[in-house]
Amino acid sequence: MLNLKKTALTGILTLAFSVPAPLLQAQSLTDGDTANIMALKKTALQSNLAYEIDESLTTEVGPRLVGTPGDAQGITWAVAKMKQLGFDKVWTEEVQHVTWTRGVAEARIIAPYPQKMVAIALGGSTGTPEDGLKAEVVEFKDFAALEAAPEGSLEGKIAYVSFRMERKINGAGYGPAVKARGAGPSMAASKGAVAYVMRSVGTDNNRLGHTGGTNYKDGITRIPAAALSNPDADLLSRTISRGKPVEIFLKLTAERKDDVPVITANVIGEITGSEKPEEIVVMAAHLDSWDVGTGAVDDGIGVSVTLAAAHHIANLPERPKRTIRVILFAAEEVGLVGVKHYMKDHENEIAQHVIGAEWDFGVGLIYEMVPGVGPAALNHIRELAHLLAPLGVSLSPKNDAKGQSDLSLLGKAGMPAVNFSPDGMKYFDYHHTDNDTLDKVDPEALKQNTAVFTIFSYFAAQSGIDFRK
Amino acid sequence: MLNLKKTALTGILTLAFSVPAPLLQAQSLTDGDTANIMALKKTALQSNLAYEIDESLTTEVGPRLVGTPGDAQGITWAVAKMKQLGFDKVWTEEVQHVTWTRGVAEARIIAPYPQKMVAIALGGSTGTPEDGLKAEVVEFKDFAALEAAPEGSLEGKIAYVSFRMERKINGAGYGPAVKARGAGPSMAASKGAVAYVMRSVGTDNNRLGHTGGTNYKDGITRIPAAALSNPDADLLSRTISRGKPVEIFLKLTAERKDDVPVITANVIGEITGSEKPEEIVVMAAHLDSWDVGTGAVDDGIGVSVTLAAAHHIANLPERPKRTIRVILFAAEEVGLVGVKHYMKDHENEIAQHVIGAEWDFGVGLIYEMVPGVGPAALNHIRELAHLLAPLGVSLSPKNDAKGQSDLSLLGKAGMPAVNFSPDGMKYFDYHHTDNDTLDKVDPEALKQNTAVFTIFSYFAAQSGIDFRK
Repeated sequence: MLNLKKTALTGILTLAFSVPAPLLQAQSLTDGDTANIMALKKTALQSNLAYEIDESLTTEVGPRLVGTPGDAQGITWAVAKMKQLGFDKVWTEEVQHVTWTRGVAEARIIAPYPQKMVAIALGGSTGTPEDGLKAEVVEFKDFAALEAAPEGSLEGKIAYVSFRMERKINGAGYGPAVKARGAGPSMAASKGAVAYVMRSVGTDNNRLGHTGGTNYKDGITRIPAAALSNPDADLLSRTISRGKPVEIFLKLTAERKDDVPVITANVIGEITGSEKPEEIVVMAAHLDSWDVGTGAVDDGIGVSVTLAAAHHIANLPERPKRTIRVILFAAEEVGLVGVKHYMKDHENEIAQHVIGAEWDFGVGLIYEMVPGVGPAALNHIRELAHLLAPLGVSLSPKNDAKGQSDLSLLGKAGMPAVNFSPDGMKYFDYHHTDNDTLDKVDPEALKQNTAVFTIFSYFAAQSGIDFRK
Repeated sequence: MLNLKKTALTGILTLAFSVPAPLLQAQSLTDGDTANIMALKKTALQSNLAYEIDESLTTEVGPRLVGTPGDAQGITWAVAKMKQLGFDKVWTEEVQHVTWTRGVAEARIIAPYPQKMVAIALGGSTGTPEDGLKAEVVEFKDFAALEAAPEGSLEGKIAYVSFRMERKINGAGYGPAVKARGAGPSMAASKGAVAYVMRSVGTDNNRLGHTGGTNYKDGITRIPAAALSNPDADLLSRTISRGKPVEIFLKLTAERKDDVPVITANVIGEITGSEKPEEIVVMAAHLDSWDVGTGAVDDGIGVSVTLAAAHHIANLPERPKRTIRVILFAAEEVGLVGVKHYMKDHENEIAQHVIGAEWDFGVGLIYEMVPGVGPAALNHIRELAHLLAPLGVSLSPKNDAKGQSDLSLLGKAGMPAVNFSPDGMKYFDYHHTDNDTLDKVDPEALKQNTAVFTIFSYFAAQSGIDFRK
């Protein structure tokens, strides 16, 4: 497991002692540019703006699930906020998705020891019959064990995957755990299961389920699917461990309406470039959230940091050479839907996206930058790393970043990217739960995050670096 | 704020260096008794029994609110468990209470910014009208501010007390906060309020409300009363701070039926004394719990520690001289109802209760013992303290303990008592919430707690000390 302080320190030492001396100056910037960056850093580290933006979003708007009133209010809020913050152009681009409503979730153990359980529908899940359903539950220690179950062996049963996500600083525990959320329900249905429950993908011990999207496979019965809170998964596993048959009740009033479209929008704002306005440096986040918390962290932090960073740059006496575009994507949580629309809408412009960074893993201090650029551009990335090192951000030896979340699709389409890695130890305590609220946001971490994004975007916009080369 | 390590250390040093030499031996015990205590300590520190008892209670029974099926199952479970653990006598004593059902709680901000809030009915609260109620909310920073509001000033309004409990090792933040729970609703109603909401009495930041009993004053309209989770109280206060009128919706389907009795029971088990069976050393806990968590901490820990301590003593080749009585009280949470019945049932026997200790503040290591005994008995308490010092338990300079929770009534009636103080930093994170589940119980702390109770009760039962003198 990575250690934050050690990693950050190693980064600083590497830069101070082993980088060739000429690289210690930012070769791609004039002295004036460097002075601007120093001033921007000071401003970002002193300003409470990002926190104030998140406070406004979560107090005045709250949750922003696609198709809900909060989603629409979020768009109105974002347009107004961008204008207020001094963006040169602000507009929205329509995005379409399908209707899904969460409804309520009820789960309980019926036998041998009746107890209620706290459960939450997976995003996109179908509902149960109106009166719920009862069946014997079969536990699997992970997705692979479910996959290995014989055909037909779950006929009439409820499948339960009890795998627990591991806490790691870089969030690496998420990948091994989340497969059971995406692919679990169809895998269980293919063996005959009538419903699916799983331990929440989360690192906390609160009685709040973690939602998140599931993906039904075509041609397989769509069965209702829910996540149990960690303490309830513990209880269910303890009960099953007694060796008697365990029967549970599940009721989900969730509704999918694949034929009823809902309209939402990407919200886009630009600080227009003074010399090469057609060349675009992207800062991205997603504006939608799950419906359970207020989306203060996911992705209120990304929204706030990117807006604040752009504002600080807009406050300079002169615009940087290239355009800085902040894209607040719609419908990220339900399957990167907003960015897919964006890719179509901007098909002919993708090559003009010179570099991008998304911020969708907030809550802690950024300790590392992972680039994804052409080999020649790496020297320039080292210049950027030199500017970020005093903030505790080291440069990863890797060069394979494709962009976080939404931007991963632009990354795959050839856009250079940098990924910033924060201390993610607490992130999955709150992720996709009711607990995603403003009190989880650390104002001091937001200042550092904002300074990093401000420096990154100014550097990329003011220098003439071709990050593709 | 007390510091655990410092306090414990000071205690040990005091005993080692400033107590007169003769007191370093336990004068009230024979060498054989002392050897028994050393053996009991070793057993308690090695045994996982207390944790296993709590695991059984919370898995096979779960929540135990008075009058619910879980309460009845808890009584059956406790009787069977006491017999299995080797108690000499086990019996129940009927306790009667009134009917209260929680129902569901819905709360949301309607204007100016619509958002849901997480709320929970206070124990004993009446319900709202079937369709809920809507009213403007008026914030008070604490109970005193509500008390100071002019008569009639809350006509048609919802009163909201936003005071936040402070985290302290000894739980001292609870007292100043809990007044708003007990007396808040009637105080608000006396000024004309139609409903009452308050910030939960709790130290966490989870979106889970803390329940707990409220007390309506005779002759004042009983208004519905609920606690908001801390993040939702933050949200409501932030919304109010914008200066516009804030309207909220509240719906509680809670029902009080003061004329419909429910029957529950105190469960009592004894290790009968070999020489003075009529003299009783009490270890107590309460068997009931709120309905929201599984009562693993409150008071599953107390139940488990006292049962395990008695079992270890029952496993000795000989019974101690006095009787050790474990009382698992009914209906503590709803107003010390079980102990009030006990006081009546045992009116003529109270003088025979030579000393008692309750355990109803579990979750951490015990760091201090506070006695409440006669002045002559203090020397003997120092002997006990000497036995407990190696477990990190210091002796308080105070001598005013009346017993925790239920036992406080016996203490007021003249029974000598000791109170054990644990590290309570986390206790009010879980207290009276859904989060009171087994994962919050630290098996290592249970071992220390059990060793302390085992030594205390053996010492008191085997010695002839008159703690009243």
